[in-house]
Amino acid sequence: MAFALTLSELARWVDGDIVRGEFDLSLTGMAALDAAGPHDVSFLGNEKYYGQFLQTAAAAVIVPRGMTSGSPTTALIAVDNPSLAFAVVVRHFASATRQFTPGIHPSAVVDPAALLDPTKTRVQPGAVIMAGAKIGDGSDIGPNVVIGEDVTLGKDCQIMANASIRERCVLGDRVILQPGAVIGSDGYGYEFSGGRHVKIDQVGIVEIGDDVEIGANTTIDRARFGKTLIGEGTKIDNLVQVGHNVIMGKHCLIVSQVGISGSSHLGDYVTIAGQAGVAGHVTIGSKAIISGRTGVTSSLDGDQVYAGKPAQPMREEMKQQAHLRRLPRLLARVKALEEALQPSLKDPNSSDS
Amino acid sequence: MAFALTLSELARWVDGDIVRGEFDLSLTGMAALDAAGPHDVSFLGNEKYYGQFLQTAAAAVIVPRGMTSGSPTTALIAVDNPSLAFAVVVRHFASATRQFTPGIHPSAVVDPAALLDPTKTRVQPGAVIMAGAKIGDGSDIGPNVVIGEDVTLGKDCQIMANASIRERCVLGDRVILQPGAVIGSDGYGYEFSGGRHVKIDQVGIVEIGDDVEIGANTTIDRARFGKTLIGEGTKIDNLVQVGHNVIMGKHCLIVSQVGISGSSHLGDYVTIAGQAGVAGHVTIGSKAIISGRTGVTSSLDGDQVYAGKPAQPMREEMKQQAHLRRLPRLLARVKALEEALQPSLKDPNSSDS
Amino acid sequence: MAFALTLSELARWVDGDIVRGEFDLSLTGMAALDAAGPHDVSFLGNEKYYGQFLQTAAAAVIVPRGMTSGSPTTALIAVDNPSLAFAVVVRHFASATRQFTPGIHPSAVVDPAALLDPTKTRVQPGAVIMAGAKIGDGSDIGPNVVIGEDVTLGKDCQIMANASIRERCVLGDRVILQPGAVIGSDGYGYEFSGGRHVKIDQVGIVEIGDDVEIGANTTIDRARFGKTLIGEGTKIDNLVQVGHNVIMGKHCLIVSQVGISGSSHLGDYVTIAGQAGVAGHVTIGSKAIISGRTGVTSSLDGDQVYAGKPAQPMREEMKQQAHLRRLPRLLARVKALEEALQPSLKDPNSSDS
Repeated sequence: MAFALTLSELARWVDGDIVRGEFDLSLTGMAALDAAGPHDVSFLGNEKYYGQFLQTAAAAVIVPRGMTSGSPTTALIAVDNPSLAFAVVVRHFASATRQFTPGIHPSAVVDPAALLDPTKTRVQPGAVIMAGAKIGDGSDIGPNVVIGEDVTLGKDCQIMANASIRERCVLGDRVILQPGAVIGSDGYGYEFSGGRHVKIDQVGIVEIGDDVEIGANTTIDRARFGKTLIGEGTKIDNLVQVGHNVIMGKHCLIVSQVGISGSSHLGDYVTIAGQAGVAGHVTIGSKAIISGRTGVTSSLDGDQVYAGKPAQPMREEMKQQAHLRRLPRLLARVKALEEALQPSLKDPNSSDS
Repeated sequence: MAFALTLSELARWVDGDIVRGEFDLSLTGMAALDAAGPHDVSFLGNEKYYGQFLQTAAAAVIVPRGMTSGSPTTALIAVDNPSLAFAVVVRHFASATRQFTPGIHPSAVVDPAALLDPTKTRVQPGAVIMAGAKIGDGSDIGPNVVIGEDVTLGKDCQIMANASIRERCVLGDRVILQPGAVIGSDGYGYEFSGGRHVKIDQVGIVEIGDDVEIGANTTIDRARFGKTLIGEGTKIDNLVQVGHNVIMGKHCLIVSQVGISGSSHLGDYVTIAGQAGVAGHVTIGSKAIISGRTGVTSSLDGDQVYAGKPAQPMREEMKQQAHLRRLPRLLARVKALEEALQPSLKDPNSSDS
Repeated sequence: MAFALTLSELARWVDGDIVRGEFDLSLTGMAALDAAGPHDVSFLGNEKYYGQFLQTAAAAVIVPRGMTSGSPTTALIAVDNPSLAFAVVVRHFASATRQFTPGIHPSAVVDPAALLDPTKTRVQPGAVIMAGAKIGDGSDIGPNVVIGEDVTLGKDCQIMANASIRERCVLGDRVILQPGAVIGSDGYGYEFSGGRHVKIDQVGIVEIGDDVEIGANTTIDRARFGKTLIGEGTKIDNLVQVGHNVIMGKHCLIVSQVGISGSSHLGDYVTIAGQAGVAGHVTIGSKAIISGRTGVTSSLDGDQVYAGKPAQPMREEMKQQAHLRRLPRLLARVKALEEALQPSLKDPNSSDS
């Protein structure tokens, strides 16, 4: 029971107010609303789950400020952001998932010309670190990871299993690569000559700022020359493609399976939702939000929400969708007009009216 | 010629009836209809290939029941499902592709605290199996695979080259991971606080049922807490993204490059065709069929076919497409109406009429 | 300064004419127009950058023939194809990125029954080459790459970090695999029987022609039987999916995140832009161009540009898009017609007019 929390301890940790419940209520686990049992903490992070909240068996629920409903036997703690608050709970109850013990596993291959402090970094089994690479203190190189020649990694990075970083790329501090991510693959560049596509050497690099996270099997191409840039604090999901010479600002969110073509520029705090695509050589302004499956084919101003193919402001896209849904009635109205004007007018080719 | 089959042996193996041909016709190979030679078996599995069937040089063709056409010199065996029957032929003629010899390759790294029977499992070169992992008998861990701490694998699993399974995930029996698949990457979860995206620990796992297959470079995220669940018998193609806390039923088919966002639930026998996307927190009923490139943005009932963006029943989508194709004629009809009413009516802004 | 070039040397190398500038102008580096300094060469490869060209601080710029504008202090060299010409510059200035030293790293695992000449090939740390594989001279097998049994690789191939090639696949000469690419994963083939999806053995291979490049984390499935074929000179970008039994012609360009379903055939010089999808069992004629995010659901003739879902000739798609944009005005015109005919006609259900 070393992990047990009281309701009042929990409220203090998450900077919340106890709306209902005994101060010394003992909480020994955590779960989602529909899975929680009588000793678990849960949280209401999305109004979609309000129905589950009303029915939950959880001992206590972290709720948004102002919420007072739910079963009278369920303790409530009110906070500004229940999801963020619950992260504190998760960190408490989850057994530590990262037991960092520095050292180089004997099966890892670290080139003598690589720079790292084996008392402050961990290199896991089968990892390969090539000549000239520099690994910052506190960084953890996962099993079978490949770090190419002259790569620079900052402090406290986590590079997970089977990820690859090609030569000369530069990563900041606290960068996380999920398994299978590829940094610095060649940009897709060819010139057509003599009936063949001739490869254009891609001699630039990828540079990644501090606190960036890159998802599993995501690919980020190196620049033709110069650099592909991922700004500080940006978070990229799984299976995303970032083309060569893309410049991405700070604190962007790029959701799964998005593709960003070469030489496009994103401002700061841009959000691109799942499976959207951005053409090459366009600019997207800061704080723009591109909704899922949108196709961006030209530059877009910031501070707006976009949708559709080609991308347009969300309200235009919604109007167009509404017009589409009204088409059957429009057809009926035109047919009625034609009949009212008969016999002066008749569509000679009409087969659908 | 150890592999040669007679027509009557073949008919017996595939539970078929000889429609035409000599019982002792010798068959020594297999090929597609347009590539087969005079000693090969082929099959007619799709009516698209009926033209090739009429012209094939194959010695014998496995056909659907009722088929009696084709060259009189081509032997025919009639079965319920020619494609399934042909699988038997393939298994016979293909030289065994999986020669399973148990044992741990000396270059593999198996933590002393991992549990496996080296006389009943195979661990190929460069594979890494971390502390606490349990590997069921008959399982084959491919070259440079990484199996994280406390992972549990059932019996007779096949984990192919460079696949990664992160800590604590649980796989059933006979699970196949194609090369590069990633199981248990962190879910994409952040809270916005102080102008930055703060990572939410993802402490749950992925649980995969028996007889599941996961395609090459597909990524399945671990749950925030609790589990991401892939039901028994479900088959997932290459480059698919499955978000955190997704619950997928049994015997689903998820085709290449599909993305399923966090916390969505799929029933059993759901089919999602290529490049479709499913938003977060939605439910798709059992036996629903989502056609290729569909964008699912809200919950859908089972037992129906859907298409479009946003997804709607296929017949609605087809009507809408038909209306779209009729738009030019609708414009012409409206113009004709305007002319009939002239001079009482005129579109003052018209430049296209 | 061993790398310094004079303007006249550069003009000779790229087969260009000096439009402006001193023959002995010394050039010591290269950069993009907006990043170049007073000793750098740059190039104008895309008219989008004309504004940057007018403002560049570069010492010299490679321009298309006929261009004479820009600052009088900027030297100009005119060529047919500035981008191709600049590749020569890049190759000169970039420190050699590939220092090929033959030999097998002691941590690599090369099966005694594999065929390669260790004095002419390089096998990097952690790579695994299985029995029966043949590696052509000059080929470079990257760190932690896996080459399966009986794979054949031609001469001068580059297989980058963590790529996987499964058993029996055949690659030509000068094939490049970017990191994480998977060649020869099983095709997605099941038959439904007894309420379950039964795996159909995929016993064919992938065959890849000379001078093909395959992008990072791209997946190419082996044929059910026979072969999946990628023609000579074809270039495939990152995160592309190629299904089983696809036949792709020569010199195609397949851009990032495209999916090509099983058994489809592409002619030569086909271009498929980003995130497009091709259904199974269709044929696309030579020199067809499929624009980004297009959904190809039936066979298409060559020598045309296609767009939309379903794919149609680009001019049809553009007309349809134009009609869509005109819908609001069409509605207004129909409303005006109705009002002109009143009281003889009235839309009884109208709520939007």
